[in-house]
Amino acid sequence: MKLNIALLAGDGIGPEVINQAVKVSDAVASKFGHEISWTPALTGAAAIDAVGEPYPDETHEACVAADAVLFGAIGHPRFDNDPSAKVRPEQGLLKMRQKLGLFANVRPTFTFPSLIEKSPLKKERIEGTDLVFLRELTGGIYFGKRGREDNDNTAYDTCTYTREEVERLAKKGFEMAMQRSKKLCCVDKANVLETSRLWRETVQKLEKDYPEVEVSYEFVDAVAMRLVQWPSAYDVLITENLFGDILTDEASVISGSMGLMPSASLGEKTSLFEPIHGSYPQAAGKDIANPLATVLSAAMMFETAFGLKDEAEAIREVVNKSLAKGVVTEDLADGGKAYKTSEVGNWLAENI
Amino acid sequence: MKLNIALLAGDGIGPEVINQAVKVSDAVASKFGHEISWTPALTGAAAIDAVGEPYPDETHEACVAADAVLFGAIGHPRFDNDPSAKVRPEQGLLKMRQKLGLFANVRPTFTFPSLIEKSPLKKERIEGTDLVFLRELTGGIYFGKRGREDNDNTAYDTCTYTREEVERLAKKGFEMAMQRSKKLCCVDKANVLETSRLWRETVQKLEKDYPEVEVSYEFVDAVAMRLVQWPSAYDVLITENLFGDILTDEASVISGSMGLMPSASLGEKTSLFEPIHGSYPQAAGKDIANPLATVLSAAMMFETAFGLKDEAEAIREVVNKSLAKGVVTEDLADGGKAYKTSEVGNWLAENI
Ligand SMILES: CC(C)[C@H](C(=O)O)[C@@H](O)C(=O)O
Ligand SMILES: CC(C)[C@H](C(=O)O)[C@@H](O)C(=O)O
Repeated sequence: MKLNIALLAGDGIGPEVINQAVKVSDAVASKFGHEISWTPALTGAAAIDAVGEPYPDETHEACVAADAVLFGAIGHPRFDNDPSAKVRPEQGLLKMRQKLGLFANVRPTFTFPSLIEKSPLKKERIEGTDLVFLRELTGGIYFGKRGREDNDNTAYDTCTYTREEVERLAKKGFEMAMQRSKKLCCVDKANVLETSRLWRETVQKLEKDYPEVEVSYEFVDAVAMRLVQWPSAYDVLITENLFGDILTDEASVISGSMGLMPSASLGEKTSLFEPIHGSYPQAAGKDIANPLATVLSAAMMFETAFGLKDEAEAIREVVNKSLAKGVVTEDLADGGKAYKTSEVGNWLAENI
Repeated sequence: MKLNIALLAGDGIGPEVINQAVKVSDAVASKFGHEISWTPALTGAAAIDAVGEPYPDETHEACVAADAVLFGAIGHPRFDNDPSAKVRPEQGLLKMRQKLGLFANVRPTFTFPSLIEKSPLKKERIEGTDLVFLRELTGGIYFGKRGREDNDNTAYDTCTYTREEVERLAKKGFEMAMQRSKKLCCVDKANVLETSRLWRETVQKLEKDYPEVEVSYEFVDAVAMRLVQWPSAYDVLITENLFGDILTDEASVISGSMGLMPSASLGEKTSLFEPIHGSYPQAAGKDIANPLATVLSAAMMFETAFGLKDEAEAIREVVNKSLAKGVVTEDLADGGKAYKTSEVGNWLAENI
């Protein structure tokens, strides 16, 4: 198969971790007889510095032309704490999500038996956790009307959802539940928000199309609690954009393996794959960042974007092997030898 | 001193836990020579059943006339999962907050050495945690314009904040920081939301009035992570209404002592005190609910509303004694004897 992949390294540790995913992807492709053509393109602070725009048109065109997008991370401290900055790396991310129509963000949280001791939670709480969030990614308060009024004395943001937007996301949730343990949790704040009531109504209507799926409805504040108390009670969770932002980040640390959590953002045509962690600017350029989340995002890409399951499995296996052998970066080294980012990538590519 | 307290027991376990707080408050009052006059009033599902309204005018008048309000819990499963219910217990809560102007919700999270093993977090993660959230409680998306459009196909909610609203809350945060360890964290989503940028601007301006306070600005998703990873890194956190709803619930379970966490909602004139836990309908009427969060809310009331520190301290001491002696309800019994809600209340009142 010929695979055209747009490569958006982004900022901070982005380029370093992306490089390892490229090595591993090339290795798995050559093993299984595929040919990858990579198209690098600029995003984030890197793109602002180069062309004054965090998601330039050429980058968008590269993404549209590709079969899938592999993404590193964006964000730079220079833009934080400056509420008045006119152009920010994050705007590029939001523009990209919107222009590519990446409406469903898939964020799994699972445990690696060898890493379970790294969880901030007690072992008996986290054991067996294997959940996945579907976060709506192109609607809600992220994309509603916002501004100032009343002589700059008042600010407002608007959260909007249409039935179609909710349905599209919820259907993906039901489908995913059918492939897993047939349990779906709809997370909202229907006791307060009108948009949440629309979510709940829409999901309730879909229930009859998926009679095997057991659906629960929980408030976002309750889920924020239960994720810490009994994360293994959850399987598939669907939610709107902002709740998803908060809860998936919370979920990503409970397993103790944040440096390993991949994600996918699915659109009708294009899909994008990226690690859950951020651009971690303090570590940039030091060859110390953990590349496994990005490598596992490449595995998700093989499976989800290209339907290549064996290839995905081969990547996951070699990652497990590296963990078992202790070929890991300093965050996982635990007193043992700490390998460099590039060394881990090389080892994975060689051992696939 | 003569203390006039409005008593809003509410739903579920509300009446049972409130009764214990009344016993303990009366005991401490008689010990220190005060006289409490309690004015019971209806709220929540109980009020809907009685008069068709979750926050009736008579209840509001009782609150306004009182020096403080002691509140149990509201909410009833009969109203959940029914997005079309016209009157809901929660509306009473929101109306009460708004009409009484309870703009600052103070929610501490701390650990009890004897309960630290109950935390879902590992001991070394949670030890030393002693933080307090100040959640804005009468603005934001809870009270903005909301509705349906486009033939019922679109729903919207509006989040609005004025500079005055932010300033009022933030000032309380700075004052609290000055009395604690002079660290303040402003939690927002300023990389996306206009209201968050207004928050950040306003807090940044206030910094010069409190030069001793060290202020940090963090995104809500990052805080949702770090609360689980290193909760003891936080001290005073200020945030808007919805973020506060989610994060304070998350924070309330990390200590393992949710059944013990009190809260205060401060207004310009009236203040209200209530446990953080909900109405826990499954346990209602069984005399098994843990009354300590409500008893500790009464302690907060003595200190905050009446300036009676010794009285508050006396309540906290007797609660610690009950924990040390194992005079606790089944949730804390750990194989030992489980006392009834009323027995715990009696023991506390007798031993004060
Ligand atoms: C950088 C930011 C705009 C973004 C978001 O809030 O969606 C990030 O937190 C994420 O979750 O991908
Ligand atoms: C019941 C609900 C409306 C309420 C809120 O969201 O404020 C509750 O969750 C709380 O935190 O007191």
